[in-house]
Parts: sequence; C-alpha cells; structure tokens
Amino acid sequence: MYIHAVSHYLPSEVVDNEHFTQLNGLSNDWIVERTGISERRKAAPGENTNTMTLDAVKRLQDKVDLSSVDLIVGATYTPYDTIVSLAHEAQHYLEIADIPVVSISTACSSLLNAIELVEGYFALNKATRALVIVSDHNTAYNNDRDTMSGHLWGDGAAALYITKERQSERDLDIKGLLTGGAAHSQKATTGVMLKPTEGGVSMPHGRDVFIHACQYMPKATIDILERCNVPLSDVTYVLPHQANLRISRNVMNTLNLPEDKLISNIQYLGNTGCAGCAIGLSENWDKFKKGERIIVTVFGGGYSYGAMLIEV
Amino acid sequence: MYIHAVSHYLPSEVVDNEHFTQLNGLSNDWIVERTGISERRKAAPGENTNTMTLDAVKRLQDKVDLSSVDLIVGATYTPYDTIVSLAHEAQHYLEIADIPVVSISTACSSLLNAIELVEGYFALNKATRALVIVSDHNTAYNNDRDTMSGHLWGDGAAALYITKERQSERDLDIKGLLTGGAAHSQKATTGVMLKPTEGGVSMPHGRDVFIHACQYMPKATIDILERCNVPLSDVTYVLPHQANLRISRNVMNTLNLPEDKLISNIQYLGNTGCAGCAIGLSENWDKFKKGERIIVTVFGGGYSYGAMLIEV
Repeated sequence: MYIHAVSHYLPSEVVDNEHFTQLNGLSNDWIVERTGISERRKAAPGENTNTMTLDAVKRLQDKVDLSSVDLIVGATYTPYDTIVSLAHEAQHYLEIADIPVVSISTACSSLLNAIELVEGYFALNKATRALVIVSDHNTAYNNDRDTMSGHLWGDGAAALYITKERQSERDLDIKGLLTGGAAHSQKATTGVMLKPTEGGVSMPHGRDVFIHACQYMPKATIDILERCNVPLSDVTYVLPHQANLRISRNVMNTLNLPEDKLISNIQYLGNTGCAGCAIGLSENWDKFKKGERIIVTVFGGGYSYGAMLIEV
Repeated sequence: MYIHAVSHYLPSEVVDNEHFTQLNGLSNDWIVERTGISERRKAAPGENTNTMTLDAVKRLQDKVDLSSVDLIVGATYTPYDTIVSLAHEAQHYLEIADIPVVSISTACSSLLNAIELVEGYFALNKATRALVIVSDHNTAYNNDRDTMSGHLWGDGAAALYITKERQSERDLDIKGLLTGGAAHSQKATTGVMLKPTEGGVSMPHGRDVFIHACQYMPKATIDILERCNVPLSDVTYVLPHQANLRISRNVMNTLNLPEDKLISNIQYLGNTGCAGCAIGLSENWDKFKKGERIIVTVFGGGYSYGAMLIEV
C-alpha cells in the first residue's frame, strides 16, 4: 500500500520557553538541554482535535481528490468528543456515506496502529482508498504548571491519503509495518496517563517512559528491516516519535546512524502526540528522492510501539 | 472467524427509576414508557472503564485460557485513561508481550468495529486469537439531572475471545460483518456528544438519534443477510444495540419479526454503550442452540452502524 499524499495543520499561536520560565522558573537552557524543545504551537480558543482534523483534511484536498475515500481512520488521545470522534467529523465534512469509520487511541504510537488497521481493511477488500487523520490537542489536557512535563506538549494534526494501489511515481511505498503493545512492562500503566475525569495528562514516571522509548524504537526498527530484508545501511532517514530530542538522538546512537539521517520537528513543535511523525512526513515530503528509504518508528504511553519502512 | 467465549461484568449497585423521580420528577411510568428502562447499574467509587475491563477479562479466564492471545482490541467512548487505554490495561494484566494492542471508539457501535478490526488482523495473518473488550462507564460522564437523557445510562463491560479457527462445536461462527459511518447525515455530529473538557454526555437531538437508529439497524441487518444469502426467516434472534426498548421494538417491526426473537437487557441495565450487545451475548450464551442464527446490529452517536450474522 502507498501513501499518496500527506498534509498537516498547526495552530498559529507559538508558545516559547519564556512562558515556562515566567510560570515555573524553568530556564530556556534547562528546557532545551533536557528536551530539545524551543517552542510549540497552541490551539486557539474554539480550536480542538476535531477542528484541526478538518484543517488538515482541507489541506489534503488541495493535493488530492478525497471524494472516493472508502475508509476513514482517526487517531487521538486528546479527544474533543469521544462520541463524535475525529473520524466522524471528517466523514461529516466529506459527506461520504456508508463507509467504515473508526477512531483509535494507542497514545503517541497511534499513527502506525491506524495505518495497520488500513492494511487490514485493504487485505479484506473492504476498502482501497483510506483517509487517516492524526490529531492531538495536548494543551486542552495539559497543565502548564506541571514542572515535570507541562513544557513538553504542542498541538497539531496531519492527514494521509493511503491507497491499496500505486497512484503516482511519487507515492511512498509502505514495504512493511509492525505494531506492538508493551503494557506488560512494570510502569507501563503509570508512566504517562491522561484521565479526563481526574485531571489532564501527567507523566510521573518520565524516566521509565524515556528508557522504554529508547529501547523499543530501535528494536522495532531492526525488526521491520529484518522482516523486509533491508540492511540498516540502506535507510536514508529515521523519523522517530517526536517525544524528546534526547530520545531521538539516543535512538540514532543505538542504531549507529548519523544524526543527519534524523528527521525532527520537536525543536519548534514540541511533542505533538500521534500527529508528530505524520507532520514530519508532510514537512519533508518534497525532500524525499526516488529510491530513498525512510523508517518511521513510534513509542507511546500505555506502552505501545511500532515501526514502518517506506520507500520513495 | 469464531466467538469462542464471552463474559461480562456488571457493577453491583442498582439505580432504579425512583432515583430520577426524586432528582428530576420523572415518574417510573414515564421512564418505562419512553425507554423501557426500569433500572441500571452504576460503577462504585474506584471502579472505572479499566477496572471493569479487568473484571470482564478475569471472568473470561474462567472459561478459556487467554495465555496465547495475540491481539487485544478495546472499545469505549467513556475512557478512564485515554493514554493507558482499556486494551493496554488488559495487556498489562495478562502480561503478554509484543502483540498488537489498540483501543477504539465509534461510540455505541464499537463492538462491531472492534470485531471488524480483528477480521483485518486475521486476514493479514498478524493474529489468530483475539481478545476484544467493550467497556463503558457512562455514569462517569453522565449528568443525572439531565432530564433528556440522564436516566438512560448504565455501566458494564464484556470480553470476547475470538479465534480465526474453530475451537469447539459451541463456537459462534461469524458468517458476515459490516460497519458503516453515517456521519454525513445532518445532525450526526450534534445528536449525541461527549466532550470531556466541556462536560459530559449530552443528547440534544434525541429524536434524530432515534430516527436514524430505527432506520440504520434494520437496513444493516438486511444488507448483511443479503451478503450472506440468508433469508430473514432463518434468523432466530436479533440483538440490537441496547439504546431504548422502543428503538429495539421498532427495529423488529420494520423487519417484520416477532418480539420473541428480540434479545434485550436494557430493561434492567439501561444503555450500557458499546458493551450492551456483548453483555447480551454473554447472558444468553447457554440459550443458543446448534444451527440457530443471531443478528447483532448496532447504531451509535457520530453516527455509526453495523450488523453481524452469527451461527451457533
């Protein structure tokens, strides 16, 4: 299957580190050193996971006709509406009747879970042209005064048009995809949480999340490359979940790959949740050259992980 | 594919209609006439979507060994934790590493969406033995004082063990399954909503939800029977989404089927969300006889619908 087009949407408000210096006494240097983040975007009043979904979908429509979409998969862990999910909102906007529509959450790893669901629908011949939307409105659930993780989060959304058959020479060919839950590990269910009725997102065991992210993303990368019989040396770019620049650099070190192969947007977007990697694909689309191979690898709270090998 | 076993969990606290008479002046007769509901269950303090998930899974373990589960799909629109989802919680409890784990929401129709995802994983040969959990903690998000819909909701969970190959003569054989979004219809995105950051569940357009539920569940039933080449007269039982007894009776009337073919638990459980139909399967498991055919048909906010034909 093929990624034919990707778009993304970012709210216009920029929140710099000075905001957290004023609020919590965390210096710019302290934040940059520990996370790599200099600024992040914040949705405006009236914006939410569903409106950002539509903004991303409208931008995708500038690239591709979506009228023949026959499957919509949405993903978020920061829902605006758990009943009228982002996938329903997209269907409502596109006015396409009677197609499978589902929204998922596996936290920050959801992009690859969403694409794996598409893979299943394609295998069943129940769909051939899928719209995938990843949208996270972290600031709706974030406590800015949380000195442990309040400065990490940003808002954003992306939309992907994925087809069973190749549509153009520029399509990204998905050569292999795996996902896995790692909730068996000890602190998986307490490392990072978002309980809507008890307050917002919290990360009491950030160190444990860090360690497991650094472990699972390289492992999943090696696994998918082995399954696809592609040597690590053939990988042009690695696009890891945008959680923390130190995690991304650690992943590159573990894989023994140079940092110029790393795709990263966390410096100016913060952790945009499950949207981060898709935004990265969208931002770098024009940079990719024929024959290049890109690894997308994710890790999220819960815990969950995954890796996907794509070829231009 | 086959449903090998089903279990369910219900909180012990019973909330009768008298509660809503005291609170809102709604009489027992008024509630029963309009909804069919006499009582519903309410989760205790400390109980939530994730604890009910584990209670249902433990009861499933009394029936079947879950140690070789290779896929977990959870479903809820009333999440306890949107990051540590009910599927992650189940994986954590079962201590099974490195299997795909995902949670979904398509509101009250999620049971069939979840089973369709399993169908996809089976088609991909990425799984052969799936645990599906449907759990809704409606009272966590419900406003008892809402005279339009406050009296509708109840709490509950169910767990299903679904396998690619037949495990026993008593398995329920899934002959066909379809799902569809109907969010294109005008009030789909405002009929029933649950916005965690703006308050709980609300149903400002209950009449529109009613009309579409009565339209889509019979339509989906006819569609799946036609696809499976099974006449309506061969259907032994119909198990519709447990939203309102008047909707269920309307579905039976539209299908021209007698009410003794209707499976219903809304009278004593209220609307238990996406868990309702699975609880119904669990409650009636011993009643089903070899060769009988059961239609499960669902409709949920957003809107979404689906139908599944199973044969004992």
